Amino acid sequence: MFESAELGHRISKIAYKRELPALREALLDAQLDLLQTQKFPVIILLAGVDCAGKGETMNLLHEWMDPRHIESHALRELTDEEQDRPPMWRYWRDLPPKGKIGIFIGSWYSSPLVDNVYGITKNAELDQQLDRIRRFETMLCNEGALILKFWLHLSEAQQKKRLTKLEDDPKTRWRVQARDWKNFKHYDRFRTVSERMLRTTSTPEAPWTIVEGADQHYRSLTIGKAILEALRGRLEAPEQPKVDEPLPPMLTSIDGLQLLQTLDLSKKISPQEYRDALEMFQGRLNLLSRHKNFGKISVVTVFEGSDAAGKGGSIRRVTQALDARSYRIIPVAAPSEEERAQPYMWRFWRHLPRRGRVAIFDRSWYGRVLVERVEELCSHADWMRAYGEINDFEEQLVRNRTVVLKFWLAISKDEQLRRFKQREKIGFKRFKITDEDWRNREKWGHYEQAVCDMIDRTSTEIAPWTLVEANDKYHARIKVLKTACNRIERALEKL
Amino acid sequence: MFESAELGHRISKIAYKRELPALREALLDAQLDLLQTQKFPVIILLAGVDCAGKGETMNLLHEWMDPRHIESHALRELTDEEQDRPPMWRYWRDLPPKGKIGIFIGSWYSSPLVDNVYGITKNAELDQQLDRIRRFETMLCNEGALILKFWLHLSEAQQKKRLTKLEDDPKTRWRVQARDWKNFKHYDRFRTVSERMLRTTSTPEAPWTIVEGADQHYRSLTIGKAILEALRGRLEAPEQPKVDEPLPPMLTSIDGLQLLQTLDLSKKISPQEYRDALEMFQGRLNLLSRHKNFGKISVVTVFEGSDAAGKGGSIRRVTQALDARSYRIIPVAAPSEEERAQPYMWRFWRHLPRRGRVAIFDRSWYGRVLVERVEELCSHADWMRAYGEINDFEEQLVRNRTVVLKFWLAISKDEQLRRFKQREKIGFKRFKITDEDWRNREKWGHYEQAVCDMIDRTSTEIAPWTLVEANDKYHARIKVLKTACNRIERALEKL
Repeated sequence: MFESAELGHRISKIAYKRELPALREALLDAQLDLLQTQKFPVIILLAGVDCAGKGETMNLLHEWMDPRHIESHALRELTDEEQDRPPMWRYWRDLPPKGKIGIFIGSWYSSPLVDNVYGITKNAELDQQLDRIRRFETMLCNEGALILKFWLHLSEAQQKKRLTKLEDDPKTRWRVQARDWKNFKHYDRFRTVSERMLRTTSTPEAPWTIVEGADQHYRSLTIGKAILEALRGRLEAPEQPKVDEPLPPMLTSIDGLQLLQTLDLSKKISPQEYRDALEMFQGRLNLLSRHKNFGKISVVTVFEGSDAAGKGGSIRRVTQALDARSYRIIPVAAPSEEERAQPYMWRFWRHLPRRGRVAIFDRSWYGRVLVERVEELCSHADWMRAYGEINDFEEQLVRNRTVVLKFWLAISKDEQLRRFKQREKIGFKRFKITDEDWRNREKWGHYEQAVCDMIDRTSTEIAPWTLVEANDKYHARIKVLKTACNRIERALEKL
Repeated sequence: MFESAELGHRISKIAYKRELPALREALLDAQLDLLQTQKFPVIILLAGVDCAGKGETMNLLHEWMDPRHIESHALRELTDEEQDRPPMWRYWRDLPPKGKIGIFIGSWYSSPLVDNVYGITKNAELDQQLDRIRRFETMLCNEGALILKFWLHLSEAQQKKRLTKLEDDPKTRWRVQARDWKNFKHYDRFRTVSERMLRTTSTPEAPWTIVEGADQHYRSLTIGKAILEALRGRLEAPEQPKVDEPLPPMLTSIDGLQLLQTLDLSKKISPQEYRDALEMFQGRLNLLSRHKNFGKISVVTVFEGSDAAGKGGSIRRVTQALDARSYRIIPVAAPSEEERAQPYMWRFWRHLPRRGRVAIFDRSWYGRVLVERVEELCSHADWMRAYGEINDFEEQLVRNRTVVLKFWLAISKDEQLRRFKQREKIGFKRFKITDEDWRNREKWGHYEQAVCDMIDRTSTEIAPWTLVEANDKYHARIKVLKTACNRIERALEKL
């Protein structure tokens, strides 16, 4: 795997200086085109052997292109903000938007590699991590990103020579750390694990490019040219006709029996029962939110449901029990410009709560498999892959000790009509009903199918859906509160 | 995940009988169209809870369609033929060709599930297995297969009822085995692991369909209709324009220094040295092939190289040392009709040796990233994904204790010319030189690039390439023999 990167590649200083001006100009041009067309984001990973020139390359790229449109990220200690969230969160927030270039030194490959070399993880765990990375990058590519991954390689002899040379020069001594020599002692092991890592994460859409790092002119020119070629290739690629690959159809229930239709929507409780239960469960939830271990978990709550199903009312009954500083409600509307320049999930990633906090999503990432599917705002392949992406995402939350609560508030078509009419009558409720609500209502059957598919494909043991019979608001609110209490309680017990 | 499959779906006998004739006719029509167009193979997996009706469904499908074009495979004990080969081999050989339908009961999902439920594998290992399955299925889909995966589900109460009922009836008692009751005791664990399995292997191109199994009419009609819809969808899908997605370009060496060019092709040995070394290494190889543990490993040898590089001569020097019953030479030419109806790798899978045997491939699966790439016989995406598929394949071989030897025989362009001319002159060698050889020679540079990329991407620690300087035939043959001896020796030592 490293054969071609141990040949002693060299470019003379003269040749380098001769080629550089044209390359820089072309790179700047490409960057400008990227910025103006905003066609896609560019993610450049600089990884590889210690002291093979990752930092120098990053500096050069800043020098060669317009640094205002390059975002650089070097691996450093996790901030406390980051420690509270899933390990990938630090990268999610650092992804460049469309039109920009993000450069990562180290990146999501660093700790899987180092942890395996030093025996902290076994090979099977490493494979799990690499599989997650592959899925993550595939998702980014499906969302349009151009990912360029460079592995800067040095042979064992080259690395030794380079460490010694850097150390001998007072000007560069600071660049060699004790850790570098420690890693060098495990050169062979690093090589073996790197090879496994590069091999299994080199995909057609995001392949690794291995570059010999010893000669700075060769290294810099190679990476510069590779970036230029990839940028130009993508910028000049003709607009692809969006072809919907023929995917296997989804099953529809042949006996007309659907999950939603089996709910007993007549479930109700009396006002008196409601008041008692409300007091009890809000009290319990409040106590739980002040539990000594609550600071070790976080809570992500998703509210979905038909229009006028009572999401807002249920959310308020939850938040009434919480300290205002501990929760945030995230109403999900059409994505902002900034959000549209990012992968679909980005606008949800950014609102993930810290530990000890609660995030309540009023509508959520499930929009993709509900409204976007039904209204054909995305392609068949897009919403089909979303099920897997959502499961991957929620699995990361749960692994990070997040309680994921998902409520579907179900009302009957008749009840919806009643509420729509009532909203139109009552002045202060009129803002809640729009033409769009009436239009959605015409697609009731399609939405119902989408909801059933969603539940079948994303209700998992670790992040189950709770179906809430919501024709009676009292029953709905209590079921939500009770479920929240039980799930949080269980999570605290398991700590 | 199982919500919709625990609703108590039912179809009455009358409704069933009313719908059946039309469904059967439509299925037969679709099957006939499939057979005539030979557009793709259909792979149907019937998996799920014990006694949920997998076998009955398989029987029904045979009854409903033309059984001559359906191939059924039920999981059974491994034959000794199969035990000698990688675990997936049994499935590789059973894949249906284009135009046919293959039905699998159990399939590649069975042992990952059962092994994890009974604690034989940990979750991380399960994830590794599931990842391999996903890659395998993705490969099949990329090669055109239609994969339909049905999971027949029963709730715990339903399964108990069904087991009891089957057992109480003397006619069906045989269908309930002690193992079924044993599994039933672990119902919850099976459910949890199945859910994880279904979730992570439900991809847009090969999603799982979960079917409630309790009512036979509902179950049969659902699966019949789902198969029909999927078949029709694919048969009627318009021919996709083959769009080459813009993939990141591959790196080319900017200083003109290429791996192949660094070989010292002047390496040679004298006839006397050759004779001595030949005798010694052939003797050693022969001893190794009769080593008491040789029956525990197998050897797969790949010979690739430029035209006239001396592959045949090298192969003969290897086989001279072996018992004729223990090796097979597989000359790889254009695929047969039967082979063209299968995934690309199929024609190599079928020739994998048993333990204690040697398979020598004269040209190999690397054709895809060499001649097919250079001559544009496949798409860019096809050969790009081939690197990963090849690595996956060879990893399976190595895991199954196969020594994978890969030789690239390199000669200079001048030496090739000399040999071509010589071949034209000598009568009995004239058959060895064709117009195609001269045409290939014109693309020398392209081939060289493809070879370097191949080595960089598929030379791994577990299955490394050996570059053989072959201007001098003596040197080449000895290097091949010596490498073979060393690698086999090491493999035997490690047992």
